[in-house]
Amino acid sequence: MASTATGEEVPNKRVVLKYYVTGFPSADAMEVLTGTASLAVPPGSSVMVVKNLYISCDPYMRDRMTKHERPSYVPEFVLGETLVNFGVCKVIASGHSDYKVGDLVWGVTGWEEYTLVTEPESFFKIHHPELPLSYYTGVLGMPGLTAWAGFFQVGKPKKGEYVFVSAASGAVGQLVGQLAKLTGCYVVGSAGSDEKVNLLKNKFGFDEAFNYKKEADLDATLRRYFPEGIDIYFESVGGPTLEAVLENMRPHGRIPACGMISQYNLEEKHGVRNIFQVVAKRLRMEGLLVFDYYSDYYKFEEEMAGYLKEGKISYVEDIAEGLEEAPAALIGLFTGRNVGKQLVAVARE
Amino acid sequence: MASTATGEEVPNKRVVLKYYVTGFPSADAMEVLTGTASLAVPPGSSVMVVKNLYISCDPYMRDRMTKHERPSYVPEFVLGETLVNFGVCKVIASGHSDYKVGDLVWGVTGWEEYTLVTEPESFFKIHHPELPLSYYTGVLGMPGLTAWAGFFQVGKPKKGEYVFVSAASGAVGQLVGQLAKLTGCYVVGSAGSDEKVNLLKNKFGFDEAFNYKKEADLDATLRRYFPEGIDIYFESVGGPTLEAVLENMRPHGRIPACGMISQYNLEEKHGVRNIFQVVAKRLRMEGLLVFDYYSDYYKFEEEMAGYLKEGKISYVEDIAEGLEEAPAALIGLFTGRNVGKQLVAVARE
Repeated sequence: MASTATGEEVPNKRVVLKYYVTGFPSADAMEVLTGTASLAVPPGSSVMVVKNLYISCDPYMRDRMTKHERPSYVPEFVLGETLVNFGVCKVIASGHSDYKVGDLVWGVTGWEEYTLVTEPESFFKIHHPELPLSYYTGVLGMPGLTAWAGFFQVGKPKKGEYVFVSAASGAVGQLVGQLAKLTGCYVVGSAGSDEKVNLLKNKFGFDEAFNYKKEADLDATLRRYFPEGIDIYFESVGGPTLEAVLENMRPHGRIPACGMISQYNLEEKHGVRNIFQVVAKRLRMEGLLVFDYYSDYYKFEEEMAGYLKEGKISYVEDIAEGLEEAPAALIGLFTGRNVGKQLVAVARE
Repeated sequence: MASTATGEEVPNKRVVLKYYVTGFPSADAMEVLTGTASLAVPPGSSVMVVKNLYISCDPYMRDRMTKHERPSYVPEFVLGETLVNFGVCKVIASGHSDYKVGDLVWGVTGWEEYTLVTEPESFFKIHHPELPLSYYTGVLGMPGLTAWAGFFQVGKPKKGEYVFVSAASGAVGQLVGQLAKLTGCYVVGSAGSDEKVNLLKNKFGFDEAFNYKKEADLDATLRRYFPEGIDIYFESVGGPTLEAVLENMRPHGRIPACGMISQYNLEEKHGVRNIFQVVAKRLRMEGLLVFDYYSDYYKFEEEMAGYLKEGKISYVEDIAEGLEEAPAALIGLFTGRNVGKQLVAVARE
């Protein structure tokens, strides 16, 4: 059934959470249902209906799959309701003056074919449709802005500094490493397979890279790669990695932290025993969430689109085909199955 | 024997470390010996000889009593050599053009009666001898500058914010709390005895204070005192306190960290399991060491001397009499024996 701006109801496949998970999640916690969607907006309202083209699988979603004892930074998903996350969409119907039918946008949408967007103001317009639209789930979207703001605004790099990136072939890490190289830093990345290590060195231009699964003593490994110590650690992993890094930071080092994926599925979190290094080395560890930087988005979009067109930034994504694959694609983030940014193609246009 | 600027040798009592300690230290690890000191400076040199009046006992010294596997931020003490730390001194002989006999100074000196200072440039002059000279080991010295720089420059407080101070009756904590009150913040402090809690509330003007030894669930305690959460946590304690605080920080909270006394004597350090809160709440945790702020010292000295003279800052110190008492005074920091800033009076003038 073709997309339409009339009031008709169309079938609408969607992904829901069946139960809250603890520990390592299974794709069975989600299921794909088929309901219906209206493709019209109520007269006089300022909402819009979008067709979802690409939806993003992001590690932070794990937090939303668990029932929180206390309110967390993002609310848990509602059981039986459609999952939500960043996606790239085409406007099908609009009551909002800023958006017209056919506009390409990205923002928080549903894991479904069509979504009624009640807050169109929260979406961003896509100014570079000549680049792959899927990039707006990654290098030109939330992970890209996270890498850019985290590295430059929180990390405050200087030319010649030593930078370590964990989860370095992932959506954020691959960009941080390349931004660091563009800044004139020395960059080492860690990843969980030899294939990913190869990407880091040969596609993304990291100075060095290693497979952390093959390193028995990460502290010693880091000492080998950073005999002078680390100035900036871009933190996406947490746990024992953070502990080993703290031993190897240089005085006045900075740790922008955008996630700690190693900890999300643990019922007993790893205790970091050497936080005192923050004092001894006068480190600055600072968390960041992308929505604090939304006001910089269009500036970022222009800069990053420029890098991509000039070939200064490479980008690798891992695209699952169809909503049916979305649950497994999301869970794959936690086993490191994905190579590059994980997303799901819901529809190609 | 009177102090003198002639070349004579005088007896010189001094405190040395006998062996490196692990775990909880005992005063027996130190001993008081008597040697001799020359009260003259070699002709043509730029060194000086000082008479030590007050020496400071500071928690960070614990780190120097243990043999480090890897270089730490301060080197370990040398066995059998005189311990060193901040002290208030009178110049007895000087080859340095900036100092003359009779000058009152503070800086890193020996735990002994007379010290040959080879780097007089590292000392500060005392501009307010009308205030108790012992204050220059505390409110007007290293702990004072730590509190001031940590609270204002790292913490960046705003009027009306919620501030939590641990080790709050100690040298740094009592000042942080009062600076926070002067800034218009709401301040709660924790300490390890009812006597100290009483000081916090009735002498230092904290809004609330509690005895952490009487609280079974620090997380719940903090939730009670900070229903809105904590904007600034001034960290001197670490371990389980830091864990409980992280649960109670507000978004964009700041944690200036100048020490983690709860961890210094543990052979197995406490692992902090919820560092992820740094991401979720976009916290900034930043270590500070006083010597990064030395260039601000004289500005600080004027400001703090003003507060003291106007009665805007109160100050409590715990003075042990004589070098013989120095080992026990230092160890007492770790049992919380001291009430207020711990120091040792070596000589009254």
